[in-house]
Amino acid sequence: MRVVALGGGHGLHSTLTALRRCPSVGEITAVVTVADDGGSSGRLRRELGLLPPGDLRMALAALAADDDDGRFWSGLVQHRFGGNGALAGHAVGNLLLAGLLERDGDPVQALETVGRLLGCPQNHGRVLPMARVPLEIEAEVALDGVGGTHRIRGQVAVAATPGRVRRVWLSPEEPPACDEAVRAVREADAVLLGPGSWFTSVLPHLLVPGLRDALLETRAARIVLLNLVPEPGETAGFSPERHLEVLSGHAPSLRVHAVLADSGSVSLPDGLHAGAADLLVPGGRVWLADVADGGASTPRHDPDALAGALADVFGALAPGDGRGGARNRNSVAGS
Amino acid sequence: MRVVALGGGHGLHSTLTALRRCPSVGEITAVVTVADDGGSSGRLRRELGLLPPGDLRMALAALAADDDDGRFWSGLVQHRFGGNGALAGHAVGNLLLAGLLERDGDPVQALETVGRLLGCPQNHGRVLPMARVPLEIEAEVALDGVGGTHRIRGQVAVAATPGRVRRVWLSPEEPPACDEAVRAVREADAVLLGPGSWFTSVLPHLLVPGLRDALLETRAARIVLLNLVPEPGETAGFSPERHLEVLSGHAPSLRVHAVLADSGSVSLPDGLHAGAADLLVPGGRVWLADVADGGASTPRHDPDALAGALADVFGALAPGDGRGGARNRNSVAGS
Repeated sequence: MRVVALGGGHGLHSTLTALRRCPSVGEITAVVTVADDGGSSGRLRRELGLLPPGDLRMALAALAADDDDGRFWSGLVQHRFGGNGALAGHAVGNLLLAGLLERDGDPVQALETVGRLLGCPQNHGRVLPMARVPLEIEAEVALDGVGGTHRIRGQVAVAATPGRVRRVWLSPEEPPACDEAVRAVREADAVLLGPGSWFTSVLPHLLVPGLRDALLETRAARIVLLNLVPEPGETAGFSPERHLEVLSGHAPSLRVHAVLADSGSVSLPDGLHAGAADLLVPGGRVWLADVADGGASTPRHDPDALAGALADVFGALAPGDGRGGARNRNSVAGS
Repeated sequence: MRVVALGGGHGLHSTLTALRRCPSVGEITAVVTVADDGGSSGRLRRELGLLPPGDLRMALAALAADDDDGRFWSGLVQHRFGGNGALAGHAVGNLLLAGLLERDGDPVQALETVGRLLGCPQNHGRVLPMARVPLEIEAEVALDGVGGTHRIRGQVAVAATPGRVRRVWLSPEEPPACDEAVRAVREADAVLLGPGSWFTSVLPHLLVPGLRDALLETRAARIVLLNLVPEPGETAGFSPERHLEVLSGHAPSLRVHAVLADSGSVSLPDGLHAGAADLLVPGGRVWLADVADGGASTPRHDPDALAGALADVFGALAPGDGRGGARNRNSVAGS
């Protein structure tokens, strides 16, 4: 089956790593947010006016071939320069992507080039940007200890501002989607949304009209993967169902076929089931599974456990020939 | 036949481009100076303490495969970032080499990796550094309009100081050579010295003891390629024979089998013949040929003409089975 994963950063890296371990998954396409303005990506973007390459690079590394060449090149593109000079902190792969973007201008071709270097095609994997131009995130944030809401501009500022995000939008508003990403979503068998920084890596895809329309209209099964823990600055104090609520708030017509959450991260399963009801298509359901890596020092998904849970969800949504199950119900719901 | 070209910068690029067009040349090894401290290389070297990558990158590009992949990657590694920020002027290939050098530490492996990317092995071409550590050039310079000589430190300072260089040496003194470069010189059929910035790209090879010994002891034919014009700051006002004189001054035991110069660049052929006499092995000779690119705005060699002249020299030095000619005389002269 063809799976598209929407997201960015470490969350998307987890999803892609898990997808590679699902035997039923044939093609994997990552559609990556391009609104980062922090770290190496932010410096490159400000200096050269290019797409921020960091999230794209990380997705490529997650899809690198599992052989000597793949490991060598993915290790190199992930390597960050040391020292405290002009290059300090830049990942080699960010500079390589920036060089390709500056010279040739076409992000899809640049990603295909680096993807080939890393052996991503061996995993039938490819990485696409959600838009061909760099985007900026703006947010309405309820600041801690201060009344009212405030407008915050830029992904880093949104994530760093203590408070709870109410709503995000993109600048430029309604940007054109990357055509190849739209086509991938329309032709997919399953589309995954999340996990990741909810307002700055997951929701932005819903704010690109071409991509949102494709997501609403695709015959693919739509699956939301919830985060393991709330994220300070973005979703502090958010329950799992509150995550779904803001998702719906940003794309009211969106209906999904499955919501997958880590059992240990859901303290009130009834609350999640109730909160998910309106978002789910008829026949859709909430899946709880142990997908957290219990031994990790910071919360993260266990790739094998996540792969197992995803395989269960895929199997239930598209049993047999891969065209039945909830996806037919989806067609009814969408018509 | 196996040919080793010693040098750096644009001069070495010319030689390598010409060598690729010589049908009798099988393997091409570039042994590149690592004393540059200017431009992108100088910034990387100062910031990260690595080998200056620029001359290495340019040699790799000269040996890139003549197919779509080779052209694509050599174009990318040669691409320099624009703008006026931290990356401005850095060649993508310099950053790629710097990443490999910083991560893995081994310059020979780093050059092999980038060489594979560019398809250099298709031309049986490889690039090696003359030493595994960055070197610094110091020079004794007779300043214009000022009496006496002055010590100048650093390649850029040497080239930029108005005057004539008397003598150069390396810091650290007597650095260890790159073993692979020593082996290549010892196993070569022909070794080329020059053209290029005489004091800062050509002579430094003679100041690395391991490399100089290999050059003195190899059974290869040794060929000096003279520059087309004197270089302001380094060799202002130098005649062709004066170039040979300073070569001998830096390696008194060196004897060569051929000196190749552009006919149009030698105003007094008798002077060159006389000046070369002591440097040549018995049977060695000066070759004059039209090897300049007459249409170029700045003086440079015409690759096809240089290839033709080199083929003539190779043919005369190693006729028939490639083991005869002047090279046998060399063995006698060297014993």
